[in-house]
Amino acid sequence: MRSIQVPLALWLQAGDAAGGGAYLYAVLGISVIGIIVAALLAKLVISEDAGTPEMRRISDAIKKGAEAFMRRQNRTILSLAAVLAVIIFISYSVSSGGVGLATRMTISFVLGAVCSTLAGFSGMWVSIRTNIRVAAAARSSLSGALQVALRGGAVTGFSVVGLSLLGVASLFLVFGGLDDPTRVPSQIVAFGFGASFVALFAQLGGGIYTKAADVGADLVGKVEAGIPEDDHRNPAVIADLVGDNVGDCAGRGADLFESTAAENIGAIILAAALYPAFGIKGILFPLVAGALGLLASIVGVFAVKGHEEADPMHALNRGFYVTVALATAGFGGAVYLLLDGNWNYFFAGLLGIATSFLFVFITQYYTEVQYRPVQSIAKACLSGAATNIISGFAVGLECVALPVLVIVGAILGSYYLGVHAGIANVSTHSAGLFGTAIATMGMLSTAGYILAMDTFGPITDNAGGIVEMSHNQASAESDLVRSRTDRLDAVGNTTKALTKGYAVGSAALAAFLLFSAYINEVKRLTHLPPEAAFPIDLGQVPVFAGALLGAMLVFLFSSFAIKAVGNSAQTIIEEVRRQFKADPGIMAGTSDPDYSTCVDIVTRSALKEMIVPGLLAVASPVVVGVVFRQFHAGATAVAAFLMVGTIVGVLMAMLMNNAGGAWDNAKKYIEMGHYGGKGSEAHKAAVEGDTVGDPFKDTAGPSLHVLIKLLSTITLVAAPLFL
Amino acid sequence: MRSIQVPLALWLQAGDAAGGGAYLYAVLGISVIGIIVAALLAKLVISEDAGTPEMRRISDAIKKGAEAFMRRQNRTILSLAAVLAVIIFISYSVSSGGVGLATRMTISFVLGAVCSTLAGFSGMWVSIRTNIRVAAAARSSLSGALQVALRGGAVTGFSVVGLSLLGVASLFLVFGGLDDPTRVPSQIVAFGFGASFVALFAQLGGGIYTKAADVGADLVGKVEAGIPEDDHRNPAVIADLVGDNVGDCAGRGADLFESTAAENIGAIILAAALYPAFGIKGILFPLVAGALGLLASIVGVFAVKGHEEADPMHALNRGFYVTVALATAGFGGAVYLLLDGNWNYFFAGLLGIATSFLFVFITQYYTEVQYRPVQSIAKACLSGAATNIISGFAVGLECVALPVLVIVGAILGSYYLGVHAGIANVSTHSAGLFGTAIATMGMLSTAGYILAMDTFGPITDNAGGIVEMSHNQASAESDLVRSRTDRLDAVGNTTKALTKGYAVGSAALAAFLLFSAYINEVKRLTHLPPEAAFPIDLGQVPVFAGALLGAMLVFLFSSFAIKAVGNSAQTIIEEVRRQFKADPGIMAGTSDPDYSTCVDIVTRSALKEMIVPGLLAVASPVVVGVVFRQFHAGATAVAAFLMVGTIVGVLMAMLMNNAGGAWDNAKKYIEMGHYGGKGSEAHKAAVEGDTVGDPFKDTAGPSLHVLIKLLSTITLVAAPLFL
Repeated sequence: MRSIQVPLALWLQAGDAAGGGAYLYAVLGISVIGIIVAALLAKLVISEDAGTPEMRRISDAIKKGAEAFMRRQNRTILSLAAVLAVIIFISYSVSSGGVGLATRMTISFVLGAVCSTLAGFSGMWVSIRTNIRVAAAARSSLSGALQVALRGGAVTGFSVVGLSLLGVASLFLVFGGLDDPTRVPSQIVAFGFGASFVALFAQLGGGIYTKAADVGADLVGKVEAGIPEDDHRNPAVIADLVGDNVGDCAGRGADLFESTAAENIGAIILAAALYPAFGIKGILFPLVAGALGLLASIVGVFAVKGHEEADPMHALNRGFYVTVALATAGFGGAVYLLLDGNWNYFFAGLLGIATSFLFVFITQYYTEVQYRPVQSIAKACLSGAATNIISGFAVGLECVALPVLVIVGAILGSYYLGVHAGIANVSTHSAGLFGTAIATMGMLSTAGYILAMDTFGPITDNAGGIVEMSHNQASAESDLVRSRTDRLDAVGNTTKALTKGYAVGSAALAAFLLFSAYINEVKRLTHLPPEAAFPIDLGQVPVFAGALLGAMLVFLFSSFAIKAVGNSAQTIIEEVRRQFKADPGIMAGTSDPDYSTCVDIVTRSALKEMIVPGLLAVASPVVVGVVFRQFHAGATAVAAFLMVGTIVGVLMAMLMNNAGGAWDNAKKYIEMGHYGGKGSEAHKAAVEGDTVGDPFKDTAGPSLHVLIKLLSTITLVAAPLFL
Repeated sequence: MRSIQVPLALWLQAGDAAGGGAYLYAVLGISVIGIIVAALLAKLVISEDAGTPEMRRISDAIKKGAEAFMRRQNRTILSLAAVLAVIIFISYSVSSGGVGLATRMTISFVLGAVCSTLAGFSGMWVSIRTNIRVAAAARSSLSGALQVALRGGAVTGFSVVGLSLLGVASLFLVFGGLDDPTRVPSQIVAFGFGASFVALFAQLGGGIYTKAADVGADLVGKVEAGIPEDDHRNPAVIADLVGDNVGDCAGRGADLFESTAAENIGAIILAAALYPAFGIKGILFPLVAGALGLLASIVGVFAVKGHEEADPMHALNRGFYVTVALATAGFGGAVYLLLDGNWNYFFAGLLGIATSFLFVFITQYYTEVQYRPVQSIAKACLSGAATNIISGFAVGLECVALPVLVIVGAILGSYYLGVHAGIANVSTHSAGLFGTAIATMGMLSTAGYILAMDTFGPITDNAGGIVEMSHNQASAESDLVRSRTDRLDAVGNTTKALTKGYAVGSAALAAFLLFSAYINEVKRLTHLPPEAAFPIDLGQVPVFAGALLGAMLVFLFSSFAIKAVGNSAQTIIEEVRRQFKADPGIMAGTSDPDYSTCVDIVTRSALKEMIVPGLLAVASPVVVGVVFRQFHAGATAVAAFLMVGTIVGVLMAMLMNNAGGAWDNAKKYIEMGHYGGKGSEAHKAAVEGDTVGDPFKDTAGPSLHVLIKLLSTITLVAAPLFL
């Protein structure tokens, strides 16, 4: 069988480069278009009215704080990345690959790290300039404000997806992928690792920052001093608003950058096993599907038009449906052109799109006020904080069940669609794995739009804060403006929650794809044919030990992430207390608090606290692989470590995200007037639950998404060390 | 190779029965001795002074409530078991086994269920009669009270271990194990399943009861009405004291009954693979080691003598050291006699004993007041309930790391000791697996003593309650008596926490053993030789799906267990409020509350609430196996379900147990006078944490121990359905 395949492959390869080239250049072109559209949108948004001088004062403070944090954070992360780049170069130089492979790996890694940093930074750069324009636009109309906010968010969405595609596609081109399409994919895995590495620290640092500032501002401001949220007398208020940008906006941007990068690369590696069937077209399929999804997202964003009276969520949903419809059509076209119109694979893609829908609905069910879970938590607040916590935690534990069933269904369904796709010349297992890869591509095809909706959240949150802080006296006009930004903010909270569901869903679906890519990579390195068996047998002691350690890493990493928030919050609490004590004029409203010291303190603390969990995540898989290599089981123990770590990580992330979201909304439900409303005993209990949920849903949970994918990319890159 | 082994095995078998018989009868004799000693101890304890009429009034109320609950619970559980017995009989009759095997399986299952029920009930029967004798003895001396409490606890310890050994050994004898030692072990697996089945419901029902009563009594009594703990005016106080018996005492008894049963059976199945090397002696080794451990525990209990001035924990520790020393010596003797003095296996046993020590130390570190974790939680109480919860949860997440490293070390160490034991005629994998089995045996050899220490906890807790409730006026004498029972109670809290560490540690260590036994069983059923490869390959889609579902089950089961406590607590809260309102004389102390209605209500509610999580646990593995059978992967998907479910279950149980224990002791630390002491804001925050921890550490956590082993035994029994 194999003896036939090799000459067949060589023959296909020779005549294939030309056909593949057109598609590759199309991908490059579309990704550049995406980046240009992002730049034009940025220009368009910035040309909008920038509000009153009072507003600008607040907005400038946020801008200054956020940019200072990002600069320092990027410097820290890129220094760590530089050290790692050297390690990668040396390891690959001394291993069998030689200097040539080492150079390529290092270039990929550095490019991944730089593109990820760039995408995160440029998205945030625009967001912190959009918030004030949204506040200004809200003075005249809701629909105008909505459009500005979404277009500002779309800058992040398009630049993230565009840069990710551009990076992978250019590496593929430059490394000669058109001539050697089956070997080049494994040379660009380091691009995914670079992206994950930056994303992990960006999400950790941003997540610690945002929640430390939030908890610190609330505990001293709302609880001790009794002043409302976003009050300009609170010295930590600017830090809190900065946090929304660096955590939610830059963090999630980095998260989805690495998702698209890592999952594109994983899919390409799996597609390499289908080379005998589809040639280079199969390998380029993931990139083409992603590029068409980007185009669909661009159209979707421009299709959003708000109405003054209607729920802004409807407008956003309409844009999403447009995107989904176009992405589905694009997917069908890509299947027709690149996969010989094999409809089994098209249906696998539809399964992925359906999965993203189901995840969004399930997340809504568990975190929105109109359903049983949040209402049961709100009711538990009647007997105090403890019953609130117990009840929310029980909801968090419960909420993993349906998503797991959906994922199991999607993976089994797409795998067997692939198995029965009737592909000649390749093993049914490879054909099935490609089915799961295509389902993941389907899920990710709308990433651009989803990310635009997500970034909408921190922008409107900030806009509300700017309106609140810039109007010292209440007036009918300012009330109207604030009510508009409040409505947008409420929608933003929903879109943020949905994106987390989407991100964890795509991580779960991609888990199997990336794991399979790792196995393929190990086979390639050990010169086994793709169709050879390479069992990760849980019945072997080292494999079992690896599985146990993988599950343990997730628990330990979450613990560090949560403790980091507590430690950083402590530093800001002390500073706010100190300022209130040193200058009584702050509370009286006669003198301004020192915002920038708070920003500075939480910046330093968050950057310090992100190092330990970050290095733990990076070092653990390598240590496990190198140690178990002594038992001749490095590659298999790491595989189990990766797999079980991913499973536990996905469940733990869902627990953290949804319990946190549910506590937050249980508080909102009570504030809507139930169980005694604001200020009641039940409300106090609900506030405690919300505070517990903050580091869960905004630090540990999102960091776990990134951890999962980091484990996949680092094991792909470090595989030669385990053999 | 195999062609040599078969005649060799037949030849060995013929000459082996006589030698094996002596050991088997010795095991039967020792287990009967254990039960007789338990009966004598019960008689001895009951002959002690039964205190004042006032004390007896309280004690009788506890006795009545506990016995009523146990009777109803046993009726419910045994009805469910009867249904299951019929299902087992029918399934095995129609499957390849025929009526003969079906009868044996059903007998094993029923015997396991009955013995487990009997052990739990008799232990509790004595405990609820011991509590008042401890209270009475505390009037004259601390050491006398200590001895009575430990001996009362030892009744549970010895009857549990004795009945477990007796059950397995008699089935082995009656089913003709002496003549057919390699096939009979798999006919008695249903004994373990029967024990697990009863244990699951006993632990769930008891755990829900104890925490619902505790939370209910505290929330209305301490928080709403402002009366102290154990105050006789609280209508739920008797239900609370009953809960200590049915949850901690009967629940943990059932837990360790199934541990010893399931792990003995698993070890015997693995030993069957070593038949060519050690003959029947190897198969009987686990039982002999267990029997010698029981003798060691008996000596240990009688070695405990308290001193008036010294810390009672020292006396208990001395007894433990005596037990460990004797059990180690016995282990060495058993290795010498039964395993040809193969010292590698002796060292594997020592590794198991060392693991139990390390687990106890790590549990102490994470849950006792003198170490960093509890102190950091207490400090977090200064900024309120939310930071207390966050900090305790972070400790719970962190605490899994060291135990996982210990387990990985123990499993790898004992496996490679087995691999290098130089056993002829068997595969190195089988020899290695037997090493892990022996490590588990080592860990479990002290189970009798550990269980006696554990049952000491609820007995002294109850004794304190009786003293408190029977002295309406404070006096110097009653203060002295209460201070003695308080000291014993504090030690009891420690021993309870340690036993949980021990139970989860043995579950973790046994996980691999039981999993391997399942694989061996599947091989036997599919007529594969023991040395054949049967990989549970995580790279296969159905296997991965099974793993995902196993992890999900643990989350969902925990959610149900926690919610059950909340639901039951709600019913008792309403009843207590109703009584306070209907009869103001209760609070004034002029009329007695209606204790028995509270007992009755929580009994009914707990029994109702245990059904759903119980059936979920029993049905899930069967459903997974039967569904994935359609994908020709029933046996492997279930294996991954079992394995990953076990890993996640062990970690989640540690999280729940230790976070709960740490919150409890953080509260105690503040009550010792730190951070403002009792009544301060920090103390209020600590009380919230303690309440959150209650269902974690006393319901969900312990139920997860049982769940893990239930998954193992049910998959062993239901294996033919998956093929």
